[in-house]
Amino acid sequence: MSQNAPNLQELAQLVNAQLIKVTDAAIRKVATLRDAARDSISFYMNTRYQGDLQNTQAGAVILRAEHAADCPTSALIVDDPYHAYAVIASHLHPRDLAPAGIHPTAIVAEDVQLGENVAIGAYAVIHAGANIGAGTEIGSGCFIGKKAVIGANSWLADNVSIGASCVVGSNAIIHPGVVIGADGFGFAPGGGSWQKIPQLGRVCIGDDVEIGANSTLDRGTLDDTVIEDGVKIDNLVHIGHNAHVGESTVIAGCAVVAGSTIIGKNCIIGGATAITGHIEIADGVTLMGMTGVTGSIREAGVYASPLPAQPVKEWRRNTVRYTQLDEVFRRVKSLERELENLKESEALALHQAS
Amino acid sequence: MSQNAPNLQELAQLVNAQLIKVTDAAIRKVATLRDAARDSISFYMNTRYQGDLQNTQAGAVILRAEHAADCPTSALIVDDPYHAYAVIASHLHPRDLAPAGIHPTAIVAEDVQLGENVAIGAYAVIHAGANIGAGTEIGSGCFIGKKAVIGANSWLADNVSIGASCVVGSNAIIHPGVVIGADGFGFAPGGGSWQKIPQLGRVCIGDDVEIGANSTLDRGTLDDTVIEDGVKIDNLVHIGHNAHVGESTVIAGCAVVAGSTIIGKNCIIGGATAITGHIEIADGVTLMGMTGVTGSIREAGVYASPLPAQPVKEWRRNTVRYTQLDEVFRRVKSLERELENLKESEALALHQAS
Amino acid sequence: MSQNAPNLQELAQLVNAQLIKVTDAAIRKVATLRDAARDSISFYMNTRYQGDLQNTQAGAVILRAEHAADCPTSALIVDDPYHAYAVIASHLHPRDLAPAGIHPTAIVAEDVQLGENVAIGAYAVIHAGANIGAGTEIGSGCFIGKKAVIGANSWLADNVSIGASCVVGSNAIIHPGVVIGADGFGFAPGGGSWQKIPQLGRVCIGDDVEIGANSTLDRGTLDDTVIEDGVKIDNLVHIGHNAHVGESTVIAGCAVVAGSTIIGKNCIIGGATAITGHIEIADGVTLMGMTGVTGSIREAGVYASPLPAQPVKEWRRNTVRYTQLDEVFRRVKSLERELENLKESEALALHQAS
Repeated sequence: MSQNAPNLQELAQLVNAQLIKVTDAAIRKVATLRDAARDSISFYMNTRYQGDLQNTQAGAVILRAEHAADCPTSALIVDDPYHAYAVIASHLHPRDLAPAGIHPTAIVAEDVQLGENVAIGAYAVIHAGANIGAGTEIGSGCFIGKKAVIGANSWLADNVSIGASCVVGSNAIIHPGVVIGADGFGFAPGGGSWQKIPQLGRVCIGDDVEIGANSTLDRGTLDDTVIEDGVKIDNLVHIGHNAHVGESTVIAGCAVVAGSTIIGKNCIIGGATAITGHIEIADGVTLMGMTGVTGSIREAGVYASPLPAQPVKEWRRNTVRYTQLDEVFRRVKSLERELENLKESEALALHQAS
Repeated sequence: MSQNAPNLQELAQLVNAQLIKVTDAAIRKVATLRDAARDSISFYMNTRYQGDLQNTQAGAVILRAEHAADCPTSALIVDDPYHAYAVIASHLHPRDLAPAGIHPTAIVAEDVQLGENVAIGAYAVIHAGANIGAGTEIGSGCFIGKKAVIGANSWLADNVSIGASCVVGSNAIIHPGVVIGADGFGFAPGGGSWQKIPQLGRVCIGDDVEIGANSTLDRGTLDDTVIEDGVKIDNLVHIGHNAHVGESTVIAGCAVVAGSTIIGKNCIIGGATAITGHIEIADGVTLMGMTGVTGSIREAGVYASPLPAQPVKEWRRNTVRYTQLDEVFRRVKSLERELENLKESEALALHQAS
Repeated sequence: MSQNAPNLQELAQLVNAQLIKVTDAAIRKVATLRDAARDSISFYMNTRYQGDLQNTQAGAVILRAEHAADCPTSALIVDDPYHAYAVIASHLHPRDLAPAGIHPTAIVAEDVQLGENVAIGAYAVIHAGANIGAGTEIGSGCFIGKKAVIGANSWLADNVSIGASCVVGSNAIIHPGVVIGADGFGFAPGGGSWQKIPQLGRVCIGDDVEIGANSTLDRGTLDDTVIEDGVKIDNLVHIGHNAHVGESTVIAGCAVVAGSTIIGKNCIIGGATAITGHIEIADGVTLMGMTGVTGSIREAGVYASPLPAQPVKEWRRNTVRYTQLDEVFRRVKSLERELENLKESEALALHQAS
């Protein structure tokens, strides 16, 4: 909650909103239309909540011009209320910054370069040659490998692991338990066992990237694994070695991107999606949740593959049928052929009969 | 292994069992029928193991009355041997409790409230305003955020992360690497990039909840993410922001529950299941493993969707056919129509011929 | 990068290669054909890269005899260039070993047995009765439970958790965030709630095993969970209690093996694959990525089940059709029967007409 409540004009300016029904409400926080009190700002887009809007106690509401008539309080008129809400919420509720400084229990190698106002948490371990940008916070229990580079104003939460030589950009948010730069999964078969292939590349992550809890991004084999600017990755996502994720692509929870796959810009990868290795996904592709991608996708658009849950009896019947799919096509083909023959011979019979 | 071996009467009493063929065996542990020695108790339910029962060296066996005749040793007669076994095993093999006290390397903020007999492990970090209930053990390397609340007699294993203001109930078991209260995955699109939406809700977890290793439960956006009493969650499970999991529901490994989804009570969610966001699952729903749920399920029952593994050649044929499924239905429809026509014209022909 | 550059003869000897066009190039590292300079060795197998081979600046290339004519520089002739490359890369790029010794902040219980040249990182916690083999490195923030055993020359990266009594063999590589020996997911239903079943087995891991970041391997209920020698497991993989993974099997990222399942030797389990519990997979089975295995697989071979991503409109149509699959089979069956009748009555008609 912000200490100095901004007045409505300030908030309106922040999102280029037209302000109507101005009051002197001191807005301190965001809230839902239902829960909002006079110190709160809310937003409205979905007409399903029209009643909530009409009855809201909010100090102000962000909405489109077409809905202003229903608003009983101050309104910030914008084209995209959801985006404006996100900007205002971020302004009213900034992250709770740790005070700058190095916790006495943090272990920071002598030649580590630290920018101004860096905050290093308890029991963090930062190895030789690492470089931490100004204003960046390293949480407790984090591990930063040799020569790793973290940009400015980034936040690594607790127990994050950054491997040697990996690079994280500025304004990053890395949630607890994330592992960046573990070895990629590379082995050569031979003589009944597997020979490890050293993983010598890095993970290079651009600016404005967020990575969810316990996700893992493996280092490349020879080249780097690359995450471009503005990418947002949810929890428990796995990014294989040498993968490349394009600018502003978002990847939802439990998705897996196998090695050497190239994902374009502005893609939306649904949760629990599995993308095989060594393929390309074009810019602007949306994959619905639980989709399996077994080959390249060359055109922007929405793609899917999950089967819907069915009552178990139907599922049993249909999955058996699925394994006979090719057979049913052959049977239909054969029916079509026979029917054709029959029609011909019938035509003949009719002809003879006539 | 228990130090003071309970005698059989005590164990029988614990599960309201009728005791037959009483001996003075001192039961110290549980074991399988095959491996059990005279100091062990075992259980029997499945007639597949009748031979093991007849030859067991166990000091006692938990079983149903109908199987007592096959038991060569003391028997505890109950209706549900598996449940009775679980109760007795828990009694004989209590968790190895850490001695109460704060490890000298733990960092506990001044105003943290600690109940009696709390145990705080090495290198744990507990932030200001947190509250840890009596008898609770916080493992080494755990991170407890500001104002987080942990109930009584709970156990957080090593490297668990609890975000600020989150609540965990009593008698919880939280396995290593679990992350509770990382930010939910919320961004508003706009201008080709994504604006972060602050995640201001908490995760609120009831009593008697167990959460498996490296699972992640995200905090809500405005409201809370809620896990009710008695829920059991396996490893590597992801629970999205604002999800609500009802009482005594179990969720197996690698399942994902997307944001704002409401799961009822007493559900059984199979492993690797993916449940989309903003839907409702009724009480008493069982989802078989690897099921995809793309819409609400309104009625209790068993549901499934996974396709079975097939030899790769058949799979290739059938998946191609799958992409032509709509076509085959249209072809069958057309065959049906033509056949109808043919039958009519044939009837006519026969009529004319007669 | 190796300090003392081996000469080509040494490298050739290492992989039993025939060396042709010998130069005095000092090879210090591996690189791709394109990026390699005179101090680098590369490999060539795929004729797609023939141009890269012909233009390479590498000091030497590993390839098959049939491709030697295209090689403008020293060549190491072998039957399996990829495997030879892996051996040479491992030789040129050994892991950056931590200096032996116990970091002053590591907490090692008094009776822990440490082999020679063990390295224990900062803030590691090693409990009573544990045994760490010679030359093994325990990373910072690792947790080693009571009586756990780690073999020789193994490497546990940062924040690895090994539960009490678990066993890890020699030459292991365990990446950050791995949890070995958390409780298996075992509960007995009864009276509307779930009674925990104590998990009393161990996880026993053989030699030469690698386990990827944030994977979890649960301890057995009464018997052990077993990972045999030479198994390689990728990131975010879950292995349930009492599972058994045979020698030299590899398991790719985000796969899940449910409890009590037995996987044979030399299997290749694709990423995001889900294998149900209590089944058996034969030796030599390959499962393609995202395959669901709902029953035992008795014969070696390649198996698959994922559906391919489709444009969302087609997917919607086809998934509806999928739920009607049984119906289409019944309709085809009925068409076949009617057609048969029709042919008979037509034959009759023709007979009568003739």
